[in-house]
Amino acid sequence: MSKIIGNSLKNIPWQEKPENYNMPIWRYTQNPIINRNDIPSSNSIFNSAVVPFEDGFAGVFRCDSKCVSMDIFAGFSKDGIHWEINHEPITFEGDSEVTKREYRYDPRVCFIEDRYYITWCNGYHGPTIGVAYTFDFKTFHQLENAFLPYNRNGVLFPRKINGNYMMLSRPSDTGHTPFGDIFCSQSPDLEYWGHHRHVMSTEKGDISAWQSTKIGPGPVPIETDEGWLLIYHGVINTCNGFVYRMGAALLDLNEPWKVIARSKAYVLGPYELYECVGDVPNVVFPCATLTDADTGRIAIYYGCADTVTGLAFTTVDDMLKYIKENAF
Amino acid sequence: MSKIIGNSLKNIPWQEKPENYNMPIWRYTQNPIINRNDIPSSNSIFNSAVVPFEDGFAGVFRCDSKCVSMDIFAGFSKDGIHWEINHEPITFEGDSEVTKREYRYDPRVCFIEDRYYITWCNGYHGPTIGVAYTFDFKTFHQLENAFLPYNRNGVLFPRKINGNYMMLSRPSDTGHTPFGDIFCSQSPDLEYWGHHRHVMSTEKGDISAWQSTKIGPGPVPIETDEGWLLIYHGVINTCNGFVYRMGAALLDLNEPWKVIARSKAYVLGPYELYECVGDVPNVVFPCATLTDADTGRIAIYYGCADTVTGLAFTTVDDMLKYIKENAF
Amino acid sequence: MSKIIGNSLKNIPWQEKPENYNMPIWRYTQNPIINRNDIPSSNSIFNSAVVPFEDGFAGVFRCDSKCVSMDIFAGFSKDGIHWEINHEPITFEGDSEVTKREYRYDPRVCFIEDRYYITWCNGYHGPTIGVAYTFDFKTFHQLENAFLPYNRNGVLFPRKINGNYMMLSRPSDTGHTPFGDIFCSQSPDLEYWGHHRHVMSTEKGDISAWQSTKIGPGPVPIETDEGWLLIYHGVINTCNGFVYRMGAALLDLNEPWKVIARSKAYVLGPYELYECVGDVPNVVFPCATLTDADTGRIAIYYGCADTVTGLAFTTVDDMLKYIKENAF
Amino acid sequence: MSKIIGNSLKNIPWQEKPENYNMPIWRYTQNPIINRNDIPSSNSIFNSAVVPFEDGFAGVFRCDSKCVSMDIFAGFSKDGIHWEINHEPITFEGDSEVTKREYRYDPRVCFIEDRYYITWCNGYHGPTIGVAYTFDFKTFHQLENAFLPYNRNGVLFPRKINGNYMMLSRPSDTGHTPFGDIFCSQSPDLEYWGHHRHVMSTEKGDISAWQSTKIGPGPVPIETDEGWLLIYHGVINTCNGFVYRMGAALLDLNEPWKVIARSKAYVLGPYELYECVGDVPNVVFPCATLTDADTGRIAIYYGCADTVTGLAFTTVDDMLKYIKENAF
Amino acid sequence: MSKIIGNSLKNIPWQEKPENYNMPIWRYTQNPIINRNDIPSSNSIFNSAVVPFEDGFAGVFRCDSKCVSMDIFAGFSKDGIHWEINHEPITFEGDSEVTKREYRYDPRVCFIEDRYYITWCNGYHGPTIGVAYTFDFKTFHQLENAFLPYNRNGVLFPRKINGNYMMLSRPSDTGHTPFGDIFCSQSPDLEYWGHHRHVMSTEKGDISAWQSTKIGPGPVPIETDEGWLLIYHGVINTCNGFVYRMGAALLDLNEPWKVIARSKAYVLGPYELYECVGDVPNVVFPCATLTDADTGRIAIYYGCADTVTGLAFTTVDDMLKYIKENAF
Amino acid sequence: MSKIIGNSLKNIPWQEKPENYNMPIWRYTQNPIINRNDIPSSNSIFNSAVVPFEDGFAGVFRCDSKCVSMDIFAGFSKDGIHWEINHEPITFEGDSEVTKREYRYDPRVCFIEDRYYITWCNGYHGPTIGVAYTFDFKTFHQLENAFLPYNRNGVLFPRKINGNYMMLSRPSDTGHTPFGDIFCSQSPDLEYWGHHRHVMSTEKGDISAWQSTKIGPGPVPIETDEGWLLIYHGVINTCNGFVYRMGAALLDLNEPWKVIARSKAYVLGPYELYECVGDVPNVVFPCATLTDADTGRIAIYYGCADTVTGLAFTTVDDMLKYIKENAF
Repeated sequence: MSKIIGNSLKNIPWQEKPENYNMPIWRYTQNPIINRNDIPSSNSIFNSAVVPFEDGFAGVFRCDSKCVSMDIFAGFSKDGIHWEINHEPITFEGDSEVTKREYRYDPRVCFIEDRYYITWCNGYHGPTIGVAYTFDFKTFHQLENAFLPYNRNGVLFPRKINGNYMMLSRPSDTGHTPFGDIFCSQSPDLEYWGHHRHVMSTEKGDISAWQSTKIGPGPVPIETDEGWLLIYHGVINTCNGFVYRMGAALLDLNEPWKVIARSKAYVLGPYELYECVGDVPNVVFPCATLTDADTGRIAIYYGCADTVTGLAFTTVDDMLKYIKENAF
Repeated sequence: MSKIIGNSLKNIPWQEKPENYNMPIWRYTQNPIINRNDIPSSNSIFNSAVVPFEDGFAGVFRCDSKCVSMDIFAGFSKDGIHWEINHEPITFEGDSEVTKREYRYDPRVCFIEDRYYITWCNGYHGPTIGVAYTFDFKTFHQLENAFLPYNRNGVLFPRKINGNYMMLSRPSDTGHTPFGDIFCSQSPDLEYWGHHRHVMSTEKGDISAWQSTKIGPGPVPIETDEGWLLIYHGVINTCNGFVYRMGAALLDLNEPWKVIARSKAYVLGPYELYECVGDVPNVVFPCATLTDADTGRIAIYYGCADTVTGLAFTTVDDMLKYIKENAF
Repeated sequence: MSKIIGNSLKNIPWQEKPENYNMPIWRYTQNPIINRNDIPSSNSIFNSAVVPFEDGFAGVFRCDSKCVSMDIFAGFSKDGIHWEINHEPITFEGDSEVTKREYRYDPRVCFIEDRYYITWCNGYHGPTIGVAYTFDFKTFHQLENAFLPYNRNGVLFPRKINGNYMMLSRPSDTGHTPFGDIFCSQSPDLEYWGHHRHVMSTEKGDISAWQSTKIGPGPVPIETDEGWLLIYHGVINTCNGFVYRMGAALLDLNEPWKVIARSKAYVLGPYELYECVGDVPNVVFPCATLTDADTGRIAIYYGCADTVTGLAFTTVDDMLKYIKENAF
Repeated sequence: MSKIIGNSLKNIPWQEKPENYNMPIWRYTQNPIINRNDIPSSNSIFNSAVVPFEDGFAGVFRCDSKCVSMDIFAGFSKDGIHWEINHEPITFEGDSEVTKREYRYDPRVCFIEDRYYITWCNGYHGPTIGVAYTFDFKTFHQLENAFLPYNRNGVLFPRKINGNYMMLSRPSDTGHTPFGDIFCSQSPDLEYWGHHRHVMSTEKGDISAWQSTKIGPGPVPIETDEGWLLIYHGVINTCNGFVYRMGAALLDLNEPWKVIARSKAYVLGPYELYECVGDVPNVVFPCATLTDADTGRIAIYYGCADTVTGLAFTTVDDMLKYIKENAF
Repeated sequence: MSKIIGNSLKNIPWQEKPENYNMPIWRYTQNPIINRNDIPSSNSIFNSAVVPFEDGFAGVFRCDSKCVSMDIFAGFSKDGIHWEINHEPITFEGDSEVTKREYRYDPRVCFIEDRYYITWCNGYHGPTIGVAYTFDFKTFHQLENAFLPYNRNGVLFPRKINGNYMMLSRPSDTGHTPFGDIFCSQSPDLEYWGHHRHVMSTEKGDISAWQSTKIGPGPVPIETDEGWLLIYHGVINTCNGFVYRMGAALLDLNEPWKVIARSKAYVLGPYELYECVGDVPNVVFPCATLTDADTGRIAIYYGCADTVTGLAFTTVDDMLKYIKENAF
Repeated sequence: MSKIIGNSLKNIPWQEKPENYNMPIWRYTQNPIINRNDIPSSNSIFNSAVVPFEDGFAGVFRCDSKCVSMDIFAGFSKDGIHWEINHEPITFEGDSEVTKREYRYDPRVCFIEDRYYITWCNGYHGPTIGVAYTFDFKTFHQLENAFLPYNRNGVLFPRKINGNYMMLSRPSDTGHTPFGDIFCSQSPDLEYWGHHRHVMSTEKGDISAWQSTKIGPGPVPIETDEGWLLIYHGVINTCNGFVYRMGAALLDLNEPWKVIARSKAYVLGPYELYECVGDVPNVVFPCATLTDADTGRIAIYYGCADTVTGLAFTTVDDMLKYIKENAF
């Protein structure tokens, strides 16, 4: 039995695994939990992040407007399923050179020590990783961008490791990047970053073709007694475009750029109509999990077809068993 | 209250706006009104144009055959919803250098003074704008192509302005053009064209990204007391292809290349399955409106996924209010 | 009345043509007959081939795994509709230089004289045509690859012609080849190949645009008293990707690189949701037929959206009539 | 003996054809006649046009500055070989919507009736054809742009034909256009243009591959007793870029979109170091000729490697003989 | 001391190696030996093949015409340096389906047993390998094309190996192929080909980047006591285009698809102006050698910048030593 | 009179400006000073950096080998013109994760406080910026890579500013990046980097087209009494490839991401044959300067056509005057 190292979360959203279901992740039967029109200005709501907050949950949501402007919005929920999302995007305090908005998308939220850190793809003469923190999801303090452009999917680890903050990311280019590996960077202070280490690459050839074009970190890694459980996205380039799926790997607890095990097989792919049809067909894109250390339950929040938000479930046992059985 | 400058049209197809609906355009509940197989030879029927005619309506329809040849066909309707489309394409009288068919698609129909003008994308060593007129939708007289290739979406204004005919168009290239602005051209005689003026461009960056790749005029502009109401299409290039949406702008009555107001937000985008799934997924493409000056009602005919034809409704008030509220 | 030259097949799967249906091929009403998850490891099962075998049917199936590895699997059926597919891929006996697996996909099966030949797209430093035979669908003997890379869709004729084996194929490149004609090659021994002849090309321009980007042979040609009935796939490149449709042609019995007639119009295109939505939207891809010489019935097995397997029906009369009526 | 229909020009620059030279055009031995630095601000001077003027010659020159801004400059010469080019670019009088400079390049100069017309590639929300006239090469009056974007190489005929002005051009796209045919357009007044006719296309395949990618008109056509002599450029796309060469054709005097004869073989290609090496290697690009009707002599001015200006010679006899001997 | 297995050739063209020269191949000091204009119709003469013939030498030459049509021409020389090339291209006897000319280029000539075989890139609905033989360089008998399109650089071994003819080639695509490995194919009769074996690939990364884009066989392999000496071309894709260089490898005598040694370093690259400047800059492309078994001398004929023909020298000792010292 | 803030360098290489020369930079008359073959293994030597060292000069040189492997080599000179370059590349001490060589190119050398820092484009799962130091050009200590991939042209300022090290760089992609701006990053310790600031962008349109595709920092900035003098490279994409030229700007002394002035016109472009012809035609690429504060003299070392190394001269007055006269 594998164990999540973390807090208990008794009110974690949950449904039991369907009978005779042979994949490690199963969908919430009422998906999508957030529809594209759930706030008045939105064209689509997806690729969003949630955390336990007070007696319920808070989150930061990517809502593309009907101008198809990309921005991030705070939201709140009692049960993790029904959400009230603010109608106005987050504004940030900080150095105006950095807080000046070009665009913001694909947020992650990570609680470290005493506050909630938000990281996202931040436009600063190209996409890079924005960093901010909040205590209350009302006031947000923006720090320096972590890296030079061009980068996407900056994901913090939920605690310092060997005294340093750690961030996973996927360096990219200025467009629909047709390449991309996962790297891990370190910082003593969330202000200066270095000691960049390569974590893992795409897989060329046939052995694991769903992740042959690019891969990027998804939710904040989950600490387990066997290593960091990383759920990530992988992309294949078919003759009719990219297909985004979810994969999983186990990283070393102390040197998280070292991969202990990685699944050749994906853990969730576009199957349902709301995942296959939308503004960008054939996308499942995980950005957050909730976990309950008592039961090992994991709830995964993921974007569907760049249009709506879905919820899915697994357990730490299901995931680690699957990763090991399907390891390269 | 804004006013349409034009005729009354008591039998305009119509449904009331749904309750609690916050967009300016709403779909006909029985969409699509024309299915892909509605004539025996057709693979798809879309991007088509209608006008009031006699006691009902006539139209010119793009029917791609099961050879996927593109041609335009006349059709007739009593109510604007149920259509009888001819099984043979339109043939044209005129100079054989010009009438020789390469391909024909995306027709518009515009009544000026005493006759119905048809403009369409006409193959002449590349796509350009074909021009013809009819009095009866039986006999069609083809004029000279308006422009040199490469051009698409030639749309006439419904009356002369300052003594000249006026045409909007989108210059293009020979393929799936990844750029495109709207221009306005003038002619004293529909034979020679000049005084080409730039009307509006795509919007780079995040401010209105749905129209960042190309834009093109849609239906014949609607004259209002505040300017010409232009409904147009705009395109974004996602990693899985183009998404075509509808936008709207208000042009100066006398110098229609001057933009009075333009909506940053789109007015209709692909949401319904018949708009998101088909030969070209994620396309709504408006080509015609019917208007009733008495009530301000507007019925919009639009192609869906390059496969079927949809109908939607709005009013001049809804549109002008939305344009102004969402202006750049 | 046209005649199939071949065996009777009393248990051919069959449904009658729907009333008022004007196309030559009609779908099985319970499609898809094979779902994407029909074996535990599969992401998708499509582009597969079947033959009569013993008192039922056998087949070779393309099952892409949840690693999105491409391989081919044997399977069996009593009725041609309900299939038991092995959970492990086929392994081959033969020269290890040739049997070493890179990837395998898009199989065809062809009975000649005393055994079943399997041909498929075989990875050997690029895609080429693998060739093997079996007597029992348990043991498979692999021969030399027929051609140098890069090639796809190697399809044998079901008998020698003028003393030589004959194979159709589509030479390609290393990626999502945006071109491709059909060629016919000859071999005295299935070991050495030559006398390569061009059969037919894509059609540029508007006359038959559905096959303007590439074409490739589909099922094993069906011998008729008027020539070889070839069902093939044709592709158009829209602004949102490739659309794969089915076409048909009639080839000379003795010199099968000579085209007697070819249909300008496609015979089946993506219409149903399972053909338009999936890992590769808008694909119908035929790989096999069953035929009954007594009745002229033809059952077509085809891949749908690179995800599931469909079944459709026609008759030799329907097909030959349609080809002739729609010939160039 | 062919004849030029036109004026005598006793002081035409001239050198005799070298001995044993088997091509119809021979280079001036002191080439290049204009170096890249010949005015203080210039990076390069090329693709320029000259005419007889007063007792010498005048011209309009493309001088790209050391900012690599593209503009056109007037210049003067006594002998047609040594040129004084103004240090400031031409400014235009006219409608400010049209005279507002984006960029200007590749001028042609054409004397019609009583004045000198300049046409050039003019930036107006994309490249199109600017038109202006001058009497003295000091004051220039700009007219409306002839066409919608995107277009290059607008070249007037030196007299009205059937009462209309005539212009050749090459419609293009927004970048390094990899396609392009020559069209002919008509105008009663140089203000409105129509009756666009296709003149000739690129040649696909091997028969005349030097002109397989794009072709465009060069100097003002030369009237001869057998038709209009058109010198044009043709382009092939090698694996290391475009090669621009000169070709020649003979057009019908009254319907100049009808090609009487066209040479399969080029008439001049990049051979000399100043043609093969420079800012754009491997370019010869003709923009002007001087002709002497008395002797049939023709002096050709052409850009070399987009860097310097060359001079070459031929006669009407040489050219027409070569065109006919090498006709398709 | 390495030995060439072959004939003596006392009149092999020869110059001694320059002093203090550290590369294995040195250029003829009077290069180029054939200029682009050496026959009246030619634009360029390059990528050509020579053999000893009677008391001198014969060859087959690629002469692109001033139409930039590609064809092959016979030629003769007393000394291997001064050549008389026929003014008319080679015509072939044989099956008209095969002899019908589309285009022909990059010939090789190989003497086997009693006759001279010519192989070349032959247009047959795409580039493939043409095969013919001659006894006298006057009459040429064309055989079947060796392979399906798309292929280039078909190079025969100068004797049967294990009873089969052997041919190296580089499968390609329809354009400026940005990939390409060397394969070896076998034939019992030069009519049917099979047993295709991969020989060697491009080298990705930094270790031998000059051959990172594509490689293809050059002259007929030279038999030595240590293996077949293969001189080949390798290509890198810089930001300003392809650079073609020469490399060398040693292949197993009995299984020539097995590489005994291969040089990481190139053996000749574009240095001289006639190699760096021309229709395709930066190309050296070897197509033939002459060898003298008595002295070990090798004369290499190679195309320069796709424009002229160069000659260079080496010895079997120089080459084998270099290959071994620079082996991967 | 502008002043260089720095040391005197009496033995700076120098030639006076030619008469009547109107550009701010003039070439050394004996260019290139380093030839492509100047060490036995080299294919080309270019894009290299020099500094004063002991009583002469030292440098780090990019020598691409005849394998076309990219590496950096130390070298020494008495006069800055004649160089002895080591025959073996530099090896580094440090963490083996970082010192493991993939490829190394385009070095810069910067003396700060007590040692020489080398920065270069370093392969670490993509190009990034390697950092090392030496005291003696014999032993080199490698630090952490400054940034995540993908990045090129990391250039240090020669002193700390406001207590931090500062580095300019150009973020890029994995290939021949067709975009690129200059950014400035800060570090307290050369180990962790942050506070990334945008410095300047490419210029779209015609105003300064030579720098419309990408720009990157060149030599270590030169401190002057008016600001940091930055010499950089700018690139335009012509139809025949990239042209690299040199530009100049003046940056704020304390906030060097603020541009005080920037020249629209380039300061040196490819003119000479050794700049226009070579492995990558049309490249001048500056990587180092020597400066003499006493006289204001500046010697610029620059790569030519990615093949050889050139030397050019200017003065601080010439440069600052030119920048101001040509400022945007």
